[in-house]
Amino acid sequence: MATRDHPPLANDRLLRALRRQPVDRVPVWIMRQAGRYLPEYRATRARAGSFLNLMRTPELACEVTLQPLARYPLDAAILFSDILTVPDAMGLGLHFVEGEGPRFARPVRTADDVARLAVPDIDRDLRYVTDAVALIRRELAGRVPLIGFSGSPWTLACYMVEGGGSEDFARIKRLALDEPALLARLLAVVTDAVVAYLAAQAAAGAQALMVFDTWGGVLPAAQYRSLSLAPLVRIAAGLKADPASARLPLVFFSKGVHQLEAIAASGCDAVGLDWTHDPVDARRRIGDRVALQGNLDPATLRAGSDAIRRAARECLDAFGPAPGHVFNLGHGITPDIDPGHLGLLIETIHEHSMAQRGPP
Amino acid sequence: MATRDHPPLANDRLLRALRRQPVDRVPVWIMRQAGRYLPEYRATRARAGSFLNLMRTPELACEVTLQPLARYPLDAAILFSDILTVPDAMGLGLHFVEGEGPRFARPVRTADDVARLAVPDIDRDLRYVTDAVALIRRELAGRVPLIGFSGSPWTLACYMVEGGGSEDFARIKRLALDEPALLARLLAVVTDAVVAYLAAQAAAGAQALMVFDTWGGVLPAAQYRSLSLAPLVRIAAGLKADPASARLPLVFFSKGVHQLEAIAASGCDAVGLDWTHDPVDARRRIGDRVALQGNLDPATLRAGSDAIRRAARECLDAFGPAPGHVFNLGHGITPDIDPGHLGLLIETIHEHSMAQRGPP
Repeated sequence: MATRDHPPLANDRLLRALRRQPVDRVPVWIMRQAGRYLPEYRATRARAGSFLNLMRTPELACEVTLQPLARYPLDAAILFSDILTVPDAMGLGLHFVEGEGPRFARPVRTADDVARLAVPDIDRDLRYVTDAVALIRRELAGRVPLIGFSGSPWTLACYMVEGGGSEDFARIKRLALDEPALLARLLAVVTDAVVAYLAAQAAAGAQALMVFDTWGGVLPAAQYRSLSLAPLVRIAAGLKADPASARLPLVFFSKGVHQLEAIAASGCDAVGLDWTHDPVDARRRIGDRVALQGNLDPATLRAGSDAIRRAARECLDAFGPAPGHVFNLGHGITPDIDPGHLGLLIETIHEHSMAQRGPP
Repeated sequence: MATRDHPPLANDRLLRALRRQPVDRVPVWIMRQAGRYLPEYRATRARAGSFLNLMRTPELACEVTLQPLARYPLDAAILFSDILTVPDAMGLGLHFVEGEGPRFARPVRTADDVARLAVPDIDRDLRYVTDAVALIRRELAGRVPLIGFSGSPWTLACYMVEGGGSEDFARIKRLALDEPALLARLLAVVTDAVVAYLAAQAAAGAQALMVFDTWGGVLPAAQYRSLSLAPLVRIAAGLKADPASARLPLVFFSKGVHQLEAIAASGCDAVGLDWTHDPVDARRRIGDRVALQGNLDPATLRAGSDAIRRAARECLDAFGPAPGHVFNLGHGITPDIDPGHLGLLIETIHEHSMAQRGPP
């Protein structure tokens, strides 16, 4: 896949698997593979001074994006960024409180707050992201594909209304029940913004796109469909209609959600599975409409070598060698993990995946 | 259902619904119905001096158990107690740290710790629970049935190994991966203890039994089956084999778990559904093998009157009027709820449930 100014892709396992085409072994990437468990990440983070500066400086974002690829034989890079860039660009004032996670200085609470929201000018207000995408794509030089991403509209709305993380999602759930039209307007503008944001990442060089619906699982089933899944359906349609993103594989990942059939029918090309799903059951329910991505419990990486090897093989056996699987954890790798354990996991996945397929 | 020394049961809707027999309207009870959202509970709790003293004094436990029944037309009482009584009776030293939840002074970490565990002498070490059950049953005087309960073996094991609540369940998940035989021994003794504990509650007067598997949902699917569900299957078999509990309806509630078919086949009479399950989908998957209990999102009670009424009706419509539904929230009522909102919810459930069934 050579484009205008990029060399051809040397390793296309990820893109092939997302399109359910045969591969010699399962592609592997790891959610949060550029992250705090890596000493080289912590060094760059310290040099950057703050997480926000790290994320907003394309050269630094590029540097940490590439770090795990230097250490491990991974099959994809994923843009280093934050899921809250879009609401930040809408003027909410993203900042991080040490030990407490993200906060917005100006949360969205009233009809006036919602009325003031507009799709940001991506080229101006999120230029640091598209510049990072372009730089990473250039530095990758075709070694592996680059995944761009966004938070889902529902997940972004949770942070925008709650003003940060939440345990009970009390404000946004009350808004959903008491003022559904207001929440619908909020979700509509955020959905438009996410489509524009992902299309801009595609135009800048991303080769696959993923939407993280971190908080879809806190909703009752009917509300999940109307508040979380319906915007995802609009995103899939919007991206397929944009020339920059129309041909890019699209992955939806709703954590803690039962309704895999509905996600698979949303227009995406692959469904991310958290570690609580049984891959056999997921494949039975979804059929081969879409690829599956996942789903080893990240806690596995805290165990000893024998247990990591055993759990990795069991996970691959549950998915089976049929086309349409991308190996990943069922959630992000945690900061306390020994990098050597991840190396062992990737090595085991390579070996067992090739053994599953037998001699070529 | 008159027994030796108890008056006949005036309201048997709960027991009939749990056995999938027709009822004039859906029975209603609320998880944590005796709890901090009630000013009368907070008054008794203050008088008791500590939560542990409240729970361990049968007269006080009886008093708070009956409080919600004086305020609302509920169809069941549930023993006021804690899910961690059994490991406490095993010598782990339960205490509560203000604002942080339960802690064990002597968590279970080593093979020696596990070897020291034994089924407690219920008559001696958990007498305060069976005394409370007997007292509540007497004070209820047949108005509504009394539900006894226990934490599930997996959930108790989580607290026993972690030493308290956890966000990542790092210790017990590592134990499960690195020392599965040790965890199996721990679960075996806890399972025996839970069977003895629930049978003793039945012998003391409980008329239905429920097992709360609060942390089943943190496990990968295969581990859920072996570590959480398998002990539940043993509990169902054990209780059905004990004359005191053989005829009592048994409810299993695994929060955040996908595998409803497997829970329904465990030997229980009813499956508790958290708020994320679609009742239509749950009934389709489970068939009519068991009753269903649930599942309105507790956050609904933070909304205004119109939204509470609408959500309550939609929840009942999703379950439909067929036999085998017990209305409840999908998780416990939270301390911040206005007691008037719960009254409105119960009133709406009564009205709509009777409307669903039409004139007698």
